[in-house]
Amino acid sequence: MSSSKPPNSRSESGSVPAAVVNRLSLYLRELQHLVAEGTQTTSSSQLGERLGFSDAQVRKDLAHFGAFGHPGVGYRCDELISEIRRILGTDRIWTVALVGVGNLGRALLGYKGFESQGFRVAAAFDSDPAKVGWEVEGIKIRAIEEISQVVIERAIDLGMVAVPAPFAQAAADVLVAAGVRGIVNFAPVSLTLPEGVSQVSVDLARELEQVSFAVASRLRAEGA
Amino acid sequence: MSSSKPPNSRSESGSVPAAVVNRLSLYLRELQHLVAEGTQTTSSSQLGERLGFSDAQVRKDLAHFGAFGHPGVGYRCDELISEIRRILGTDRIWTVALVGVGNLGRALLGYKGFESQGFRVAAAFDSDPAKVGWEVEGIKIRAIEEISQVVIERAIDLGMVAVPAPFAQAAADVLVAAGVRGIVNFAPVSLTLPEGVSQVSVDLARELEQVSFAVASRLRAEGA
Repeated sequence: MSSSKPPNSRSESGSVPAAVVNRLSLYLRELQHLVAEGTQTTSSSQLGERLGFSDAQVRKDLAHFGAFGHPGVGYRCDELISEIRRILGTDRIWTVALVGVGNLGRALLGYKGFESQGFRVAAAFDSDPAKVGWEVEGIKIRAIEEISQVVIERAIDLGMVAVPAPFAQAAADVLVAAGVRGIVNFAPVSLTLPEGVSQVSVDLARELEQVSFAVASRLRAEGA
Repeated sequence: MSSSKPPNSRSESGSVPAAVVNRLSLYLRELQHLVAEGTQTTSSSQLGERLGFSDAQVRKDLAHFGAFGHPGVGYRCDELISEIRRILGTDRIWTVALVGVGNLGRALLGYKGFESQGFRVAAAFDSDPAKVGWEVEGIKIRAIEEISQVVIERAIDLGMVAVPAPFAQAAADVLVAAGVRGIVNFAPVSLTLPEGVSQVSVDLARELEQVSFAVASRLRAEGA
């Protein structure tokens, strides 16, 4: 079996391609939509069709983690939701600290999609003394100097770095020193983090490139 | 060859897996970093190593689009940058309209990573009369009613939708009616768009799930 696997990038767990983990999030959202629509069971072909994947892809992705279907029934949506959340680690609540309360930081504090997926932003920090003490979306902004104390006191698991690029590494360093285990980096710069600390970088231009590729491909096919 | 390809999701161009297009963006950024560091040539193993992919993955991804290496030299960074930009369609400037100038919209208007990758935000719209007429990051905010006129006048190619979920479909509909060819959707809701209009959805919780998966996997490996 292993020789038939594509030589994909591996997630940090060492055995599962990062692209598979990404698709687990998509399956989870689609299952949550199905349940919201009142659907109780689904199939790899229905899930795949709604997301633009083949049924074989869905089955292969899930097979990395076990056998979840029932003969003659398919997948029970609630059950598969629980299983995927367990795999993603979101069968618990992760507490998150935000560093950088600029426009992007404020947008992240107001983002409605975190809590329902298992992430609670529990603290926010900014280097601007004029912002410290303010409350945004119910969260009091604190000084950067308070990071280590607050991360320990509130048992913060993860960090989101939304500061300008030149300050991102320093912000990440303080979070890591305080014991944060993973970081989502919104600054357009690569972070160097110690072994054992996970990071994912968000590059907003990448989404536009996906769209420009699709449009450019269609224009090439249509015209010239 | 085609039987050895994994049954991945296909990009809208019909022949290239979406995951490959995503990795093209990563290769492009890394090549740009290499050039900024003064490096003129690179190899699939160097590129792969910097990004956590195998050299075979890099070669396979690029092979979708042609042969770019030189015997005994590897890849010329500048040349490969040009080729990838041509493939992604970013060898030209795409004009982008933003709908929704809340916190996230303001963050997008201030994002420094778009212009260098070939995207120019050329117009911004909001439904709040109190915001219309304001200038943010040098861009005047206009009323939603002006979308069709401005999209035509300014030859806007792409749209970014950063409005609350209940208003996202309507915003997309107006952009599409005005002639926009692709949409990046930041609202946590699925859009229904006509054939021939590309869309990519940004779900900010997905990045946190990638990190929680990595941390949870490590905790499982270490403990229990």
